[in-house]
Amino acid sequence: MTGRTGALTLGLWQSSGTPGDVTANLAEVAKAAAQAKAQGVDLLVFPECFLTGYFTDADVAQIAGEVEPALGQLAAIAAQLDMAFVVGSYLPGPMGVQNVALIVTPENGVQAPYAKQMLYGTWEEATFTPGQHPHAFDWRGMRIGVLICFDIEFPEVMRATAALDVDLVVVPTSLMAPAYAVPRLLVPARALENQVFVGYANRIGADAAHSYPGESVIAGPDGAVLANAGGGTELITARILATDVAKARAEFSYLEIIAAKGAS
Amino acid sequence: MTGRTGALTLGLWQSSGTPGDVTANLAEVAKAAAQAKAQGVDLLVFPECFLTGYFTDADVAQIAGEVEPALGQLAAIAAQLDMAFVVGSYLPGPMGVQNVALIVTPENGVQAPYAKQMLYGTWEEATFTPGQHPHAFDWRGMRIGVLICFDIEFPEVMRATAALDVDLVVVPTSLMAPAYAVPRLLVPARALENQVFVGYANRIGADAAHSYPGESVIAGPDGAVLANAGGGTELITARILATDVAKARAEFSYLEIIAAKGAS
Repeated sequence: MTGRTGALTLGLWQSSGTPGDVTANLAEVAKAAAQAKAQGVDLLVFPECFLTGYFTDADVAQIAGEVEPALGQLAAIAAQLDMAFVVGSYLPGPMGVQNVALIVTPENGVQAPYAKQMLYGTWEEATFTPGQHPHAFDWRGMRIGVLICFDIEFPEVMRATAALDVDLVVVPTSLMAPAYAVPRLLVPARALENQVFVGYANRIGADAAHSYPGESVIAGPDGAVLANAGGGTELITARILATDVAKARAEFSYLEIIAAKGAS
Repeated sequence: MTGRTGALTLGLWQSSGTPGDVTANLAEVAKAAAQAKAQGVDLLVFPECFLTGYFTDADVAQIAGEVEPALGQLAAIAAQLDMAFVVGSYLPGPMGVQNVALIVTPENGVQAPYAKQMLYGTWEEATFTPGQHPHAFDWRGMRIGVLICFDIEFPEVMRATAALDVDLVVVPTSLMAPAYAVPRLLVPARALENQVFVGYANRIGADAAHSYPGESVIAGPDGAVLANAGGGTELITARILATDVAKARAEFSYLEIIAAKGAS
């Protein structure tokens, strides 16, 4: 049981963005944030690599170089609107470019990012340096884990994040057609089997290699779908209460039972 | 990739049975097997503790003592009909009574059983000695894993069975209302995330403590529901092709990717 009592309204911004154009995507973040704020959203999650674009034949390192100058503007938008963001992006680092989720809060600006652990396919493996660790941050009386796309398809990777004692896991994604079973089946299953909230924010549109079906989804700690999107530009929201996690675990806790088995 | 080419028709027998009456349940196995044989079934799976009954206030050890004399009859039915069975039962052993899945083939009779690893709740924990290992058997060009009820709700337990390089996992269960999300969500998710077939055979009816909603289900290695039952006495069937497992893994194999990560 997390024992926490935080509450927030989660929003997922489902959009194609403008692949390769950091300036345009930053402007869309500002516009989406204002729209979400008007709907009461506290924490707004954008798709995988939303700030930079996801798949490209262009030079990823060059696009990644435009991210650091944009971070101050993300922090300024968060502070101005009193909202937090989780935004997918390329990010340059000493070991190479990573596929990250930027984490921005109104109180503390840009936090340590999460880097995707499970890279998908040959292009990602050739392009990004994988992350090595699960990650979570605390905000407004809630602990929030972060995964990216393919990560959540592996129950072990989700379990390691849930084991950080989180209430909610947010997941920027660029899920491709025809993998509809991921948002429809695996995301709610991950929520249920860990008894946590999950918000999975997908991209739409198409690029030279892939098309992205949307279907962003928010699932509750009993596996119920609380909100889900179709295939267009869309903002979906749900109220997240940390106390619902404790309620879901009142009969039994999957996390406690499997931890006890591992220790035996 | 399993690389196997076996094919069989799987049947799940969903029924209340006659809790506490091994003789009556053995007669129902014979009747169900004849009906299933007429529908082309090769492997027939019965619910958790079908042969003995599941929850009871009576002396479990006494009922369990009636199982061993019944094993010869199970083997005789299998041989006569040229069918294999997986049947839930109590089973006495040197460490106490276990909650097992009996495995019976027409060629070799009663095989080593599988013992439930994840006992559910205080009654099971007070009544049964847990199993310690995943389990699979080979039959007709296919490798078949076995789990029981609560086991499959834990992705780690399912993964350890899938890692035995199985094509199909069969799951006798006594799933209680209102846990509908298990057959509707978790079972298809387990099939997809391991890219194997899963057959989940539930009980119906009620006893002093619980009611059982049925909803037995067969899912394919892409997570698709191939057959599912309502809440009554029912036989559901699906054709299982080992080559479909390789097809599901043609793009990528979740098992190979997570095994490589664990080894890195």
